[in-house]
Amino acid sequence: MENFVFQNTTKVIFGRGTEEQVGQEVRRYAKKVLLHYGGGSIKKTGLYDRVMNSLAEAGVAVHELGGVKPNPRVDLVRKGIAICRENGIGFILAVGGGSVIDSAKAIAIGVPYQGDVWDFYAGKAEIESALPVGVVLTIPAAGSETSGASVITNEEGHYKRNVGHDVLRPKFAILNPELSFTLSAYQTACGVADIMAHVMERYFTNAENVDLTDRLCEGTLKTLIYNAPIAIQEPTNYAARAEIMWAGTIAHCDLLGTGRVEDWASHMIEHELSGIYDVPHGAGLAVVFPAWMRYVYKRNIGRFAQFAARVWNVEPDFTSLEKTALAGIERLKGYFRSIGLPVTLKELGIPEDRLEEMAAKCTERGPVGSFVKLGKDDVLSIYNLAR
Amino acid sequence: MENFVFQNTTKVIFGRGTEEQVGQEVRRYAKKVLLHYGGGSIKKTGLYDRVMNSLAEAGVAVHELGGVKPNPRVDLVRKGIAICRENGIGFILAVGGGSVIDSAKAIAIGVPYQGDVWDFYAGKAEIESALPVGVVLTIPAAGSETSGASVITNEEGHYKRNVGHDVLRPKFAILNPELSFTLSAYQTACGVADIMAHVMERYFTNAENVDLTDRLCEGTLKTLIYNAPIAIQEPTNYAARAEIMWAGTIAHCDLLGTGRVEDWASHMIEHELSGIYDVPHGAGLAVVFPAWMRYVYKRNIGRFAQFAARVWNVEPDFTSLEKTALAGIERLKGYFRSIGLPVTLKELGIPEDRLEEMAAKCTERGPVGSFVKLGKDDVLSIYNLAR
Repeated sequence: MENFVFQNTTKVIFGRGTEEQVGQEVRRYAKKVLLHYGGGSIKKTGLYDRVMNSLAEAGVAVHELGGVKPNPRVDLVRKGIAICRENGIGFILAVGGGSVIDSAKAIAIGVPYQGDVWDFYAGKAEIESALPVGVVLTIPAAGSETSGASVITNEEGHYKRNVGHDVLRPKFAILNPELSFTLSAYQTACGVADIMAHVMERYFTNAENVDLTDRLCEGTLKTLIYNAPIAIQEPTNYAARAEIMWAGTIAHCDLLGTGRVEDWASHMIEHELSGIYDVPHGAGLAVVFPAWMRYVYKRNIGRFAQFAARVWNVEPDFTSLEKTALAGIERLKGYFRSIGLPVTLKELGIPEDRLEEMAAKCTERGPVGSFVKLGKDDVLSIYNLAR
Repeated sequence: MENFVFQNTTKVIFGRGTEEQVGQEVRRYAKKVLLHYGGGSIKKTGLYDRVMNSLAEAGVAVHELGGVKPNPRVDLVRKGIAICRENGIGFILAVGGGSVIDSAKAIAIGVPYQGDVWDFYAGKAEIESALPVGVVLTIPAAGSETSGASVITNEEGHYKRNVGHDVLRPKFAILNPELSFTLSAYQTACGVADIMAHVMERYFTNAENVDLTDRLCEGTLKTLIYNAPIAIQEPTNYAARAEIMWAGTIAHCDLLGTGRVEDWASHMIEHELSGIYDVPHGAGLAVVFPAWMRYVYKRNIGRFAQFAARVWNVEPDFTSLEKTALAGIERLKGYFRSIGLPVTLKELGIPEDRLEEMAAKCTERGPVGSFVKLGKDDVLSIYNLAR
């Protein structure tokens, strides 16, 4: 186990009806808030009205900025920064999924910074301070509701880049599983793939003696594997939605990475897909992760065999752990397919003509990953395995 | 899953040599600290000197109060409160195990309170504020290093009572597994039983649809079951000590209870043993928990069968889940025995003449537990099952 520091200060408020507490939570921090959200869905479901009522009851003045798109854009972030500065806003409330939260975090670091906010994502500036951010979550997927991370896309050049800092952890995260009832089967599956990927990015490590976090990772994956098909078949099944939502937070709250070296190659490799083609991040991960596994599993066959046996209940073949390891990867791929996700670039609708360019861009700041360090040719091989 | 609020703000600093950061961590909060510890062991091991050096380097002035005993006494707490008041001390640093931390927390709530500190434990006063507390942990067991709980014994009447409040969560917890190398086999086993009990108090719940936390509980238990015998046989095995130490924190940081109704009857029943006879809390739990299980398992045979199958790898007997359930309880008992713990009151050296008095005292504020609510006669039956 590696030395580590772990502190996650976000207050999680979980359960039915909890969005009605949003006003009193915001009020602890500011009297004037930027309400940040995506398309019109929160207006259709009535969530917008409930949030506005709660804020009004708490005496919080509201400025609004909707229109966050999946793979959120830096242009809208800049607009949010301007609104906050012009109006002396002291708090950003994200009502939505990971894209909205990440956009809110970008606004939060941009407001107190003199330069352009993209500097942080381009690695040209260090995060020092941020406005406080709060969350009402509608899509379990990104885990951004308690993480210190934010991923933003810059359309100039189709760059999708991430930053991380503890000051970006939201002050509170309101998690009402009922708010995810309206997600389509495909959105639900994409979210689950993203959550599973967050666990697997941590699971495949070269750190040794990581029993506890291995077990916690495996338990989180098994919970998702069991509950995702239920939520897909019965969209208003509260229990299944609740398991997925809480697993989504646990997967990315940094607990599962304690004492381990994390990987994150698959996320980097996927970012090039959703950065250029604007495919759902979770669907991209469902394509990339099994291909990545096929490419790297020989680095630690025992770990992949453990993954197969413990997570997928593959009966270990003690005469060939390699067969066991490969069976686990096939189970993962079969599972993604069973919940309606693409598992090839073709199914995802990605043409083959720009793979080399994507591999180059993915590695332009150096090799990606840690379990196995991957250069441009490796990444291209993984794209080819995923075709 | 039940609605819940979860927030654990403690900063965990984990790994080899981390006690050397204690000065800079304390310095964020105060210039004058009460250093609180137990017997002389931290002086023998050199830990005391390392802590004092780090505090001196950070320019922190130190007052000292040693002498905390297992099942910490309110008398020493009162002494600590007086020292803090007389010297304008702004921070309490606990260097030790759960007893030292709980005693430090008691001092922390006592300092700003006008009345006698026992009022909180007797349920006569509500906690509102506390001095900040920090921890350098030497014994993985109580989980007090990130919890908001404190258990104190009042020798007048042998009362052992607990309080809980978020202001009692330590600001930081320094967890260096090397500091637990000097624990004896018996101390190690007692600690592991205490940690397992913290998980099991949460595992046995009537709340339904708690898949994720079930899995996290099971993973934590399996980690302990695997690593405890290693640490007992090889006291300086860093990996095993690290797994136990991190599991001890995770078990009691409140994560594993999210969305569940917790039980805590076994702890209440055990408190009467260690309150009167001053036996190690973990040893008392090893005696009480299997007896409690035998008494209550029929309330939910499926849950006990799940415990048997998932935690203990009992092959389920699908024609009799009751047999499966009972086999799990026997495995737990056998495991405790295998790591050198007592599993009967007799082995623990507790005479039988005061069981009725203990059952009465245990339930004097009403029935204990939640999985099954237990009155005086129930508790007496459990003591009798444990004889």
